[in-house]
Amino acid sequence: MGENARRKQAVAAARKLGVDALLVTHLPDVRWLCGFTGSNAAVVVPVGSRFRPILVTDGRYTAQAKAEAAGLKVVIAPKSAAIAACEWMAQAGLKRCGFDEGNTTVAALKQMQAAVPAKLRRSMFQPVGALVSTLRWIKDADEIGKMRDAAALGCRLFDDIFEHIVPGATEAEVALALEYKAKLAGATEMSFPSIVASGPRSSLPHGRASSAKLPSRGFVTLDFGVVLDGYCSDMTRTVHLGKATAEEQRVYEAVLEAQETAVAAVRAGVTGGDVDEAARSVLRRAKLDKWFTHSTGHGVGLEIHEGPRLAAKQTQKLEAGMVVTIEPGVYIPGRFGVRIEDMVLVTKTGAEILTPSTKAWIQL
Amino acid sequence: MGENARRKQAVAAARKLGVDALLVTHLPDVRWLCGFTGSNAAVVVPVGSRFRPILVTDGRYTAQAKAEAAGLKVVIAPKSAAIAACEWMAQAGLKRCGFDEGNTTVAALKQMQAAVPAKLRRSMFQPVGALVSTLRWIKDADEIGKMRDAAALGCRLFDDIFEHIVPGATEAEVALALEYKAKLAGATEMSFPSIVASGPRSSLPHGRASSAKLPSRGFVTLDFGVVLDGYCSDMTRTVHLGKATAEEQRVYEAVLEAQETAVAAVRAGVTGGDVDEAARSVLRRAKLDKWFTHSTGHGVGLEIHEGPRLAAKQTQKLEAGMVVTIEPGVYIPGRFGVRIEDMVLVTKTGAEILTPSTKAWIQL
Repeated sequence: MGENARRKQAVAAARKLGVDALLVTHLPDVRWLCGFTGSNAAVVVPVGSRFRPILVTDGRYTAQAKAEAAGLKVVIAPKSAAIAACEWMAQAGLKRCGFDEGNTTVAALKQMQAAVPAKLRRSMFQPVGALVSTLRWIKDADEIGKMRDAAALGCRLFDDIFEHIVPGATEAEVALALEYKAKLAGATEMSFPSIVASGPRSSLPHGRASSAKLPSRGFVTLDFGVVLDGYCSDMTRTVHLGKATAEEQRVYEAVLEAQETAVAAVRAGVTGGDVDEAARSVLRRAKLDKWFTHSTGHGVGLEIHEGPRLAAKQTQKLEAGMVVTIEPGVYIPGRFGVRIEDMVLVTKTGAEILTPSTKAWIQL
Repeated sequence: MGENARRKQAVAAARKLGVDALLVTHLPDVRWLCGFTGSNAAVVVPVGSRFRPILVTDGRYTAQAKAEAAGLKVVIAPKSAAIAACEWMAQAGLKRCGFDEGNTTVAALKQMQAAVPAKLRRSMFQPVGALVSTLRWIKDADEIGKMRDAAALGCRLFDDIFEHIVPGATEAEVALALEYKAKLAGATEMSFPSIVASGPRSSLPHGRASSAKLPSRGFVTLDFGVVLDGYCSDMTRTVHLGKATAEEQRVYEAVLEAQETAVAAVRAGVTGGDVDEAARSVLRRAKLDKWFTHSTGHGVGLEIHEGPRLAAKQTQKLEAGMVVTIEPGVYIPGRFGVRIEDMVLVTKTGAEILTPSTKAWIQL
């Protein structure tokens, strides 16, 4: 099963760092390692074979933990799961535990240290960074299947939303229709608060749906995603209401060319910076690059924002199995903006677009 | 204006702790101190009068920060807001800064330390705990107005949901109807994933709405809240489908008596433990206390779970202006459960119920 192979990867990475065990408390990492979906959890993955991995949670989740985390020993604790996990490690004689200092508060570390014998306090907890989260960047076959399903649902929602994109409807009404359809179709939630940014608000890169009414003329940017079976989708399309100006059309075409050029630049072995530059150079030639104020994309999976980053000067190489967004945009302050975004699967030879909804100019 | 008075409170609390400034990065605290609602922010509140407070955010929020955080100097930084804030403090000659170690990761603290001169690294950052969050426990007049509005919207949603509570409808459909109506009415989001727990699932204290169908006979527990203008509401009602047994009615009456007794125990000066005991003692007399497996309530405001806790042995005294939930429940595993919850405003002489929807027995 997938989780077993994932734990082996984590053990191999932890062994290289010279720790006895990993303490994992970031919930997406917990889910990835053992399948548990509850809201309070800590997983201990021992590096040696003396102990089975354990999952600590509380009494609300006794049945669920045993069902979901079949390969693990389940420990039910009334207190903080991380603290109970530390006590368990100390009792088991483990002496060096890797933890993710980017997902552990200063206060939590202090409590963890207080939960082990005094002589271990200084040496027990070794920061190992986002070790598990980084392993999650590369998706296995099961995950790719789930991400395909989430992305496909996003596309169906886009195809089904046009009746709501009419002058006078509020942005919030459009977002609500999207979300209602998403949940009826099985999404547990949206990946993030939906962006519906119309008219001059389309010039806001993060224009969350507001009470603004869609204009009779102007762009409407829709940036949204669903969570389906734990995995996030993410896509953006920009459509136009009414007759467009030549400038609006020119900007749209430039953003589309930048987006398609960046998608074409994706394959295993290129860097995040290469892909960003592919998009940025198109907009530079069109003299629009100064309005492209964010990076080109990011990884996506159990979390809506994961690594790798696709941004200027990023030297991280893409690898087959990564799923990333490609989302250049141009935002002319106070006037209008355009963004086009796909979610793509990195392969050895290129990119497979998981969100194949049309990117052609749409005028409603 | 409210935020100015709030910053004065924070300065007074910080001065007592002997720090030059507070670094605030927890977003609800940021919003409370200055009104800014963006997703990336750090606020520095200097204790002395040499500097104005500053708000650091990024280029996405330039206009919004100036509009929302009118009293502050706005600093736009392309990097982490907290790091930029630390650099600003070092340049300004501030030497001891209080930070919330419960909302700062180990990695973030390390980066903060690296952002100030080497000689300040060890002494600059003083853990002051949830100083600002604790000030937020007591709501000012503006906040109480917003919480009244949020709670009132919750009540209207409850009154309007009965047509959806029919045998054969799924819990998820009921939750979706609630959420759809909430957003149409102006809620930005729900305070938490709505709980709709029916039949035997009503015995799960945290039974998030599932694909289970409402039975022709049995309880349905609805626990939900909205976020309106930043403030959360929270309420629970339990209704019955079809003919109830004498035992079900007896449990309902006991929970209702426990809830009303606890509400009656609320006033400035009593402890969280006193209120918890008021509810628990009623259930003890009814020999149901072993099924009351959680605490009686919690503070609510910009966050759905704030202090104070209303739980056994809590010695924290309630103060006028706190808004807390009173939500005892009885959960008989595998059979049924009942919870009744109001949001109440603590006053000098008692409690004002902000969620006055009926708590009488409802049989549908």
